[in-house]
Amino acid sequence: MKDWQLLTEKLRQFNLERDWSQFHNPKDLALALSIEAAELNELFLWKQPWEANPLKVKEELADIFAYALLLADKYNLDINEIVTDKISQNAQKYPANKAKGNARKYDEL
Amino acid sequence: MKDWQLLTEKLRQFNLERDWSQFHNPKDLALALSIEAAELNELFLWKQPWEANPLKVKEELADIFAYALLLADKYNLDINEIVTDKISQNAQKYPANKAKGNARKYDEL
Amino acid sequence: MKDWQLLTEKLRQFNLERDWSQFHNPKDLALALSIEAAELNELFLWKQPWEANPLKVKEELADIFAYALLLADKYNLDINEIVTDKISQNAQKYPANKAKGNARKYDEL
Amino acid sequence: MKDWQLLTEKLRQFNLERDWSQFHNPKDLALALSIEAAELNELFLWKQPWEANPLKVKEELADIFAYALLLADKYNLDINEIVTDKISQNAQKYPANKAKGNARKYDEL
Repeated sequence: MKDWQLLTEKLRQFNLERDWSQFHNPKDLALALSIEAAELNELFLWKQPWEANPLKVKEELADIFAYALLLADKYNLDINEIVTDKISQNAQKYPANKAKGNARKYDEL
Repeated sequence: MKDWQLLTEKLRQFNLERDWSQFHNPKDLALALSIEAAELNELFLWKQPWEANPLKVKEELADIFAYALLLADKYNLDINEIVTDKISQNAQKYPANKAKGNARKYDEL
Repeated sequence: MKDWQLLTEKLRQFNLERDWSQFHNPKDLALALSIEAAELNELFLWKQPWEANPLKVKEELADIFAYALLLADKYNLDINEIVTDKISQNAQKYPANKAKGNARKYDEL
Repeated sequence: MKDWQLLTEKLRQFNLERDWSQFHNPKDLALALSIEAAELNELFLWKQPWEANPLKVKEELADIFAYALLLADKYNLDINEIVTDKISQNAQKYPANKAKGNARKYDEL
């Protein structure tokens, strides 16, 4: 069994014990994910790029992975596959020779 | 090598070829993650919880995982460990008998 | 009639003509607002604090004000009053002598 | 003096007394705004569209207006003007006869 599947299994079990799947529709899961992303961003607010508290970054990232995994589970997505596919797509949108050393969006390359 | 380490390795290689690590400080990576989370949420806007386009959900979730993995990499975090730790913490904050069937925050249980 | 009431009136009229109030429940309006906030943030991504395109900042800020006004309208809130109240509250949470020159949260002052 | 200008003046004064303008670059102000937007959204999480606590909605909306006004101030924007302009633009992107009763984006009308 893959890493991701093991984590998803643990999360599923956790929610099952609390009867929480009734709240976990995709729209609210996506909302929860973006709220956690904002909490992560708050660690950097008014600060230099490296000044966030690493212990808190760890906590918020864990929450983000948890909601992302639950959402992927709702749509039966395989994490390895979707991320690998996306990297391939991005390799076409951002050819190394054009994108090298700049952060412009693909439609401005 | 674990699943997520393989994905991280691919992402690192992708960015290396484009010389993008200069932009990838933790603050901007966290910002990028929250922007992708918003794009995910946009798929559900003005809609019922299950009406988002699944193909687009897949794309946005892939972006979210990619930035979350890059950020975890910056802080040398082990995904399995941080998510498992968080589940244990939440099991204490949300005891099954108290949290069962309600979505209140731990400080309102 | 106050400035913001005039704007609210125009927004209401705009939506009435499109029969959009059926979509504009508070939850989706709040979601729309956070999506616009993310679009605003995207203008600053991978950039120095002052490098965003001012014309685009103008556009995104307009969207944010529009959704914030529509949401305030749903709850019959007076903008002058709620912002002035909040400033008074913050003046107590962040006394000038303690908060001066630092960006710590009130519970860390 | 317009409503907006009065509020902006109060906010400016508040920050001046705390010497906070050093932190208030546009990038961090935009970030702060999106964090407040997420706090607003959290009031609706796992809930039906009208179940948020109105008193808390009031608080979070006030924070959002405050940061939006500070950001507008940085770019010398006139709120009435930018929102009115945006409504005119949207009237062209979303003609009433095509957009009536549906929530599709302008490029899908």
